Amino acid sequence: MSAGQGRKAADARVLRTRSEVARTALAVLTEEGSDALTHARVAEIAGFSKTTLYAHWPSRLDLAAAALDILGELPSRERTGDLRTDLVDQLTSFRQGVTDHRLDRVLAAMAQWATIEAMNEVRERINTEGQRPLRAILEGAFHGARLEAIVSMLSGVVACPALMFGTVPDDDVIAAAVDIVLKTVR
Amino acid sequence: MSAGQGRKAADARVLRTRSEVARTALAVLTEEGSDALTHARVAEIAGFSKTTLYAHWPSRLDLAAAALDILGELPSRERTGDLRTDLVDQLTSFRQGVTDHRLDRVLAAMAQWATIEAMNEVRERINTEGQRPLRAILEGAFHGARLEAIVSMLSGVVACPALMFGTVPDDDVIAAAVDIVLKTVR
Repeated sequence: MSAGQGRKAADARVLRTRSEVARTALAVLTEEGSDALTHARVAEIAGFSKTTLYAHWPSRLDLAAAALDILGELPSRERTGDLRTDLVDQLTSFRQGVTDHRLDRVLAAMAQWATIEAMNEVRERINTEGQRPLRAILEGAFHGARLEAIVSMLSGVVACPALMFGTVPDDDVIAAAVDIVLKTVR
Repeated sequence: MSAGQGRKAADARVLRTRSEVARTALAVLTEEGSDALTHARVAEIAGFSKTTLYAHWPSRLDLAAAALDILGELPSRERTGDLRTDLVDQLTSFRQGVTDHRLDRVLAAMAQWATIEAMNEVRERINTEGQRPLRAILEGAFHGARLEAIVSMLSGVVACPALMFGTVPDDDVIAAAVDIVLKTVR
């Protein structure tokens, strides 16, 4: 094996390790809570040594940031151009994220960590990214205070029951929310 | 001092201790995060022995539940009977709770603890209680899926920016949200 091939193999291994650690950290975070997100726990589950983890992710916040980066890779729906369809699709997809990836717990963990200065930037980035598709759909029809209100209101339809009661809204609740909002344009 | 007076004094002392511990636990929870909410930390700040704390609040969850009980004592606004005024007042008062008592962090901590079975009941109770005034205002005008949607949407106007970005909505955003909702009745 040439030096170049050796480096490629090592690079691939590093990438696999990074991705494996990030996925494990996200799983620990959402299934066991943020208290459980430690180097020891991730090392145990992912099957790496704690030394390896500390070398790449010196702090628990680094582990958390790695976990959260995965969320940026979640697929988003294609837009149809019809405002009502796109909004319902977007909220349904957010609801799916809560069910499949426990986005509500991720949101709660990030809010908790907001007492730690270094996490503010990560939280800001992830949440801005997370709200971007919804905001993009709405920006053509609304602006100013009304736009800000609607972004929070529609996020709230899914986020509030999840965060407050561990439940998700039914289809008819999502549809009712979208129709309330659309009444102001039609 | 008679036995009766002695008992009364002891009862008063227990009540004072309970209230002091609950207030300290809430302060630790909102200012230092849920990881910091330990018997040692509360004992240190409130000036009680850890033994006393463990005797009355055997687990960290008991401390958390005591802290959360204080939230039920927060004052709520008197209703005027005008739907718009009452909704704006209610959301403004929720926003005040976020600013003064960091209700967003309390919400996040409870969502985090939802991975722990015993906390579900506490969370359910606190959040149901917290949403009751808003729900009471809306119930005269809305029902079914639309009522559920609006309760979440209006909670979301304050909760979402607080939980996601550590900010609270301006007056004009709160007013815009209420007006969007009222358009469906007028």
